Amino acid sequence: MTIMIMGGDGYIGWPLSMHLAVNKDESVVIVDKFLRRDWVTEVGSHSATPILLMKNRLRAFQQSFGKTIEFEHGDLRSYEFVYRIIKKHNPRAIVHLGEQPSAPYSMIDAEHAAFTQVNNVVGTLNILYAVHKVVPECHLVKLGTMGEYGTPNIDIPEGFFKIDYNGRRAELPFPKLANSFYHWSKVHDSGNIMFACKVWRLRSTDIMQGVVYGTKTNEIDEDERLLTRFDFDGVFGTVINRYCAQAVIGYTLTPYGKGGQKRGFIALGDSIQCLTLTIDNPPEAGEYRVFNQFDEVYSINELAENVSKVANRLGLNTDVVHVENPRIEPENHYYNPRHEKLRRLGFRPTYKLEEELEIMLEDLSKYKDRVIAKKHVIMPKIHWKA
Amino acid sequence: MTIMIMGGDGYIGWPLSMHLAVNKDESVVIVDKFLRRDWVTEVGSHSATPILLMKNRLRAFQQSFGKTIEFEHGDLRSYEFVYRIIKKHNPRAIVHLGEQPSAPYSMIDAEHAAFTQVNNVVGTLNILYAVHKVVPECHLVKLGTMGEYGTPNIDIPEGFFKIDYNGRRAELPFPKLANSFYHWSKVHDSGNIMFACKVWRLRSTDIMQGVVYGTKTNEIDEDERLLTRFDFDGVFGTVINRYCAQAVIGYTLTPYGKGGQKRGFIALGDSIQCLTLTIDNPPEAGEYRVFNQFDEVYSINELAENVSKVANRLGLNTDVVHVENPRIEPENHYYNPRHEKLRRLGFRPTYKLEEELEIMLEDLSKYKDRVIAKKHVIMPKIHWKA
Repeated sequence: MTIMIMGGDGYIGWPLSMHLAVNKDESVVIVDKFLRRDWVTEVGSHSATPILLMKNRLRAFQQSFGKTIEFEHGDLRSYEFVYRIIKKHNPRAIVHLGEQPSAPYSMIDAEHAAFTQVNNVVGTLNILYAVHKVVPECHLVKLGTMGEYGTPNIDIPEGFFKIDYNGRRAELPFPKLANSFYHWSKVHDSGNIMFACKVWRLRSTDIMQGVVYGTKTNEIDEDERLLTRFDFDGVFGTVINRYCAQAVIGYTLTPYGKGGQKRGFIALGDSIQCLTLTIDNPPEAGEYRVFNQFDEVYSINELAENVSKVANRLGLNTDVVHVENPRIEPENHYYNPRHEKLRRLGFRPTYKLEEELEIMLEDLSKYKDRVIAKKHVIMPKIHWKA
Repeated sequence: MTIMIMGGDGYIGWPLSMHLAVNKDESVVIVDKFLRRDWVTEVGSHSATPILLMKNRLRAFQQSFGKTIEFEHGDLRSYEFVYRIIKKHNPRAIVHLGEQPSAPYSMIDAEHAAFTQVNNVVGTLNILYAVHKVVPECHLVKLGTMGEYGTPNIDIPEGFFKIDYNGRRAELPFPKLANSFYHWSKVHDSGNIMFACKVWRLRSTDIMQGVVYGTKTNEIDEDERLLTRFDFDGVFGTVINRYCAQAVIGYTLTPYGKGGQKRGFIALGDSIQCLTLTIDNPPEAGEYRVFNQFDEVYSINELAENVSKVANRLGLNTDVVHVENPRIEPENHYYNPRHEKLRRLGFRPTYKLEEELEIMLEDLSKYKDRVIAKKHVIMPKIHWKA
């Protein structure tokens, strides 16, 4: 059987595809249109790691592991394309990572907000319809984000909660309080997927993923040509990546605002472990299941301290200087999301933040010149109020 | 000051525009692209009432009332267009009725699902951005639907509810359980609007409207040329309209499934009263406010009985025969949505269902030939499972 990875050229998609191809006796098909590469170019940046073109990645992977990954080039916004490739490959699982993933990118202007929501919502709708028509038993593993929930003043369950209200009881989807048009696009997807599972008896796992960090997996370790991308710009770089990039070129680390913003984090290798477990344990027909996929919660101040500590140990002197927050978000809040479902399936975290930060900083030091070349794009230029 | 009516050629938009122009000393600008007319043609139907082209409507209105309504022709999906007309007219309020409003239409296939969500979501995003950039004080009155909530097993509040959960308390948006890709498009809109109010301090009222029925308002009564549309096909016709059309041509009334589906209903004139009250009482800057806008709750069986009773009184013999439900929806459920906010603003229902049904059936009898010409499109052809 086949597993399709939508967005398999991306930061998680590429190492996940390699992991599945190496460790599972199944064929892996990557689907991508390389839009992420275009968007990062559009905002004036590039991956710190020098990543190969897909055809060269696939050749290097074949040379290193003696296995073949198939590739389909096309746009998920085209239903004709999505229908055709799903019919052709008859997947038992689809991992959908093929969306515009940046909150700041979605907040540039009206066009970028609309583009983000259309790209993400239509891509997912097309996959849902094609699965319904062609492979109704297929398990759709959809990458959402913990950011769908925002930061409510109560515990965050995994997707659904039982509540008493005016003397009656119901189990309902947990309300969403997203904080950018990108994050809302993921909320929209979640609603559409939940509905499709109900009316068409599809099966899907909606992954509310935390921030993913790290540069390494077992497969990447084999061959530098298999590196995954590392974005550090203010638009596509996560907070950890930006801190690491700043540390490597001797800049101060710049948390946004007060820095009490708490988020869930998970290492790249652990994300791949979770996604593999999810694929291996599909839900029932008609079941829409939500996993909160992260390992630990940190505030962005705590992260800055961690990066600074590790950097100083490596001889990279860094300070922490708070800058004005370009986003509108609570900077000091309650945050207690549950995350037991993946543990119950057997997830055991194998990466520790400090060790992983050390590897990231060492890896990134090799590509310091590439960071310096784009150092002007690390600081935020897109403001939520603009 | 100016009030803009997006979708002012539609069933509610046209009589609302006339009402505001006649009763308020303000200029009214209608914005439309006549897509609704195209969609109804696409599904093989037409309005039972013979509605004029916009230019003739506007001329007839001017002749009857001596007042002028302005008109802008264009597509809300174009940000350039939306920005330009909002800048040109500088509205104090925008009533946004300009969306694809049919659940079955959105369930035809992948293309119609994507079209519906893109059309509705992008139109609203463009209005939000243009309001933010040009008229940040403007009140956006957005037409959502009671269908956003679906039919949860607990009371439905007006948008938000306070809950206790795991020993903590929060006020959160009430979860949405929509039942078609159309209804989900409205949920997506609601999330985007709530977010825009928060980050940009916009002010908006999101109207969760029930099913609107009726053919008359004070302005329409003046002149047959001012009639609003009346759709009775299985795609764009509401359940009341389909029943009335069936009664007028001697067909049986056909509730879907068991018929215990309960919905909120409101007469056209009362909807216009509510919208006018909403415009007259704008929320604060930054406030996202939700009104549940309906008068009474009926099951679709109760409605069939009502239509049948009135029809028989008028000498139109009708029976009620249940047909297979083309939708996937609970056919017997708890339903208790609250609707106090508009009453607190002064809303007093002035139309009674039975009286209004009598008027509808009489009006429709005049256009019986137009119903007969399209009688084959009354029964449902779009199935949620297809």
